[in-house]
Amino acid sequence: MFEKEIYIKRRELLKKSVNSGIVLLLGNGEAAVNYADNAYTFRQDSSFIYYIGLDTPGLAYVLDIDNDTEYLLGDELTIDDIIWMGNLPSLKERAAAVGIETVLPYSRLSDFVAKNKPVHYLKPYRHLNTLYLCDLLDKKADEVISGFSIELTKAIIKMRLIKSVEELKSLEDSGKTGYAMHIVAMKMCQQGVSEREIAGVIEGLAISEGARVSFPTILSMNGQTLHNHDHSGILAPGRLMLCDAGSENMDHYASDFTRTTAVGGAYSQKQKDIHNIVLKALNDSIALAKPGVTYKSVHRNAYKIIFEGLRSLGLMKGDTEEALNAGAPALFMPHGLGHAMGLDVHDMENLGETCVGYDDEVARDTMFGYKSLRFGKRLEPGHVLTVEPGIYFIPQLIEKWKTENINTAFINFEKLKAYDGFGGIRLEDDIVITPEGSRLVYEKRLPVTPEEIERAVKD
Amino acid sequence: MFEKEIYIKRRELLKKSVNSGIVLLLGNGEAAVNYADNAYTFRQDSSFIYYIGLDTPGLAYVLDIDNDTEYLLGDELTIDDIIWMGNLPSLKERAAAVGIETVLPYSRLSDFVAKNKPVHYLKPYRHLNTLYLCDLLDKKADEVISGFSIELTKAIIKMRLIKSVEELKSLEDSGKTGYAMHIVAMKMCQQGVSEREIAGVIEGLAISEGARVSFPTILSMNGQTLHNHDHSGILAPGRLMLCDAGSENMDHYASDFTRTTAVGGAYSQKQKDIHNIVLKALNDSIALAKPGVTYKSVHRNAYKIIFEGLRSLGLMKGDTEEALNAGAPALFMPHGLGHAMGLDVHDMENLGETCVGYDDEVARDTMFGYKSLRFGKRLEPGHVLTVEPGIYFIPQLIEKWKTENINTAFINFEKLKAYDGFGGIRLEDDIVITPEGSRLVYEKRLPVTPEEIERAVKD
Repeated sequence: MFEKEIYIKRRELLKKSVNSGIVLLLGNGEAAVNYADNAYTFRQDSSFIYYIGLDTPGLAYVLDIDNDTEYLLGDELTIDDIIWMGNLPSLKERAAAVGIETVLPYSRLSDFVAKNKPVHYLKPYRHLNTLYLCDLLDKKADEVISGFSIELTKAIIKMRLIKSVEELKSLEDSGKTGYAMHIVAMKMCQQGVSEREIAGVIEGLAISEGARVSFPTILSMNGQTLHNHDHSGILAPGRLMLCDAGSENMDHYASDFTRTTAVGGAYSQKQKDIHNIVLKALNDSIALAKPGVTYKSVHRNAYKIIFEGLRSLGLMKGDTEEALNAGAPALFMPHGLGHAMGLDVHDMENLGETCVGYDDEVARDTMFGYKSLRFGKRLEPGHVLTVEPGIYFIPQLIEKWKTENINTAFINFEKLKAYDGFGGIRLEDDIVITPEGSRLVYEKRLPVTPEEIERAVKD
Repeated sequence: MFEKEIYIKRRELLKKSVNSGIVLLLGNGEAAVNYADNAYTFRQDSSFIYYIGLDTPGLAYVLDIDNDTEYLLGDELTIDDIIWMGNLPSLKERAAAVGIETVLPYSRLSDFVAKNKPVHYLKPYRHLNTLYLCDLLDKKADEVISGFSIELTKAIIKMRLIKSVEELKSLEDSGKTGYAMHIVAMKMCQQGVSEREIAGVIEGLAISEGARVSFPTILSMNGQTLHNHDHSGILAPGRLMLCDAGSENMDHYASDFTRTTAVGGAYSQKQKDIHNIVLKALNDSIALAKPGVTYKSVHRNAYKIIFEGLRSLGLMKGDTEEALNAGAPALFMPHGLGHAMGLDVHDMENLGETCVGYDDEVARDTMFGYKSLRFGKRLEPGHVLTVEPGIYFIPQLIEKWKTENINTAFINFEKLKAYDGFGGIRLEDDIVITPEGSRLVYEKRLPVTPEEIERAVKD
């Protein structure tokens, strides 16, 4: 938690961005695993963390814009709560710690709705909150979901997108744990070790040093499946292990890195060649990212590097501009170059990915590959982004393009056969846009060349 | 997953237990952490696992009792699913693997509801399923929740409560990982180590060797908080670390053990005295547990041992029977002796704890302490239970009883002052009721005497 004044200032700014009515921020509740009392690790809503800072279930915040009053709503602990779950300061004390004077029981939320003023709330993504809003507003689920406040959503995105000094420190702290997770994964990347064992150890490290992982760990020899949570493989010689993993620190700021490691650190020339194209795309993207540049253009440049690299290996062919205009490199990188990161690993994705990553100037593309770019707009100092180019050999996608004659002018399908079973390589760093350009969020960079990674494996 | 025939047989038995209408088992969906696509580790519903065995989100099962037909409902993967999340066999193939012939798209569920027959479903605990049932049945959430089928619920509890040979093997497998988690925790129980670090390492081990932890790890020097998930302490000399943790294996069977370890393995005489009372309660309970005995009577016997042990230390006083009838030992053990365990660590708690643990013969008590006993009924071969007595010094509860003059005839409040800051000791093993008596689920027993634990710490 930050200093009280930070939350007060944030709420002051929020108040100025919403015209009138009631602002309602619902905190998260517990989420059941297999029965109500067996809950997943509690995760507070990120906007609630940003404005209120309190990290326990069962809270709501109301800002009455017209009367310039604010309230924290929640229920005090019972003796049973204390015996089973432990004690907490009173609601009043906890509210005071973040600069809120007035507290009310949770059930009093209905009083504010009864005032017949517009209630600004965010689109719910937790079904408990959807059910609660159905009851509170006497509406059906689809009406509740579509009835969120665009005004409030845009105001929050605008504030949260530019990271402050203290947020950058917290992101750096999270990056430190993410770094440690990847070093451990590299060292464990040895023939005969199971993917699941490594995933467990690094997820444990995220819990040891912070709150949890910032997203489910992707760790697989089958890196061509972009979000591969199947960890059933046993590391085999000659294969690559793609590890995309990060941590969430105790303040809930994320880290998110990807490295692809040759099992036992032994890269083949073929693997090095692909690795080095991805690495060039990564380094060039970081160098390009600066205020005033659109991230969509950085993504396009990454496609250019991938195209030219694969052409030099004989896997792609033709004219660069034509291939880029046709979207041909998306066969090998069907995902976006990166996304905003902060309290969420895909920052504010619950508020609408396109609303976060695009604006009136830069529109989201519908072309395959580009359509998956989560953030495309012009960069500003304080933006925090991931940069994560990759090259994958996805049998089903190659087959589809071949069968449906998609971009055949730019792809050498015959030569691709030799890459069957190659998997995929992705390399990812986290950057912050500075007034001059960009820098890594956590300044110590993970081993990233085949030679550096080989040393980390064998150390 | 077990052999196909096991699931077929289970469904055959289920069919015979429900009179008429439609049986609807909803599998679980993904549960959002901070936005829809950032999901907690997927956990299938346990009854769905038991009858259908398929472990992916977005499935439902329909059994039409009157027409003797059954269906698996779900949607096939798209090319996007395959690129991002990986491939799976077709729905038809997956259904066939568990003996179901007919598959339908998920949306076809509404056809069965339209037939105007009674729809038997279980009480939803996942809000997504509640929302789905609201839509499907065109009812409000409270109607959906109260409208579950008692007939189906009772039929399932009856079947799942008695563990088969293959289930016992799976529970043993899970116990092996739980054992390893506790050995690691004991070895790490050294001055200066943080609770969070240890919790992370053992949760990581659960992920490395299985699916996940079977419940959020309880690991704290403040063992007097029964379900303490606050891991912010740094282990200090002279203190006790209570660790209540277990794993869920890949088949989703649970383990659940508790050990309390003196930091650095150095027990004081005071700690040993309390430890040995709890240990006697544990061992006597295991010896008592056998077919025909009610678990409520075993719980009462544990209270007897705790009372007599604490009386010998001068902390309690008076006549044993009178103290037991008054519920005096509950001050020191305000929880139940144990619970059923299986696919859920509190087995079938989602179906109703009292419905699982009590029956027409043995009713749930309302007395403090007894009211928290989750399982009280007569034991039968195949029941799997935890045995987990404890003694805690809970300042807020002691203060309450003292102030409100509760059971003052049996408690020496003056002497209790010397136990301020002691924390609590709980010891827990998992047993299976056999035709002759009971045995440990995982036959290798964790170190349990102060001397054994001391050796494990120092090894």
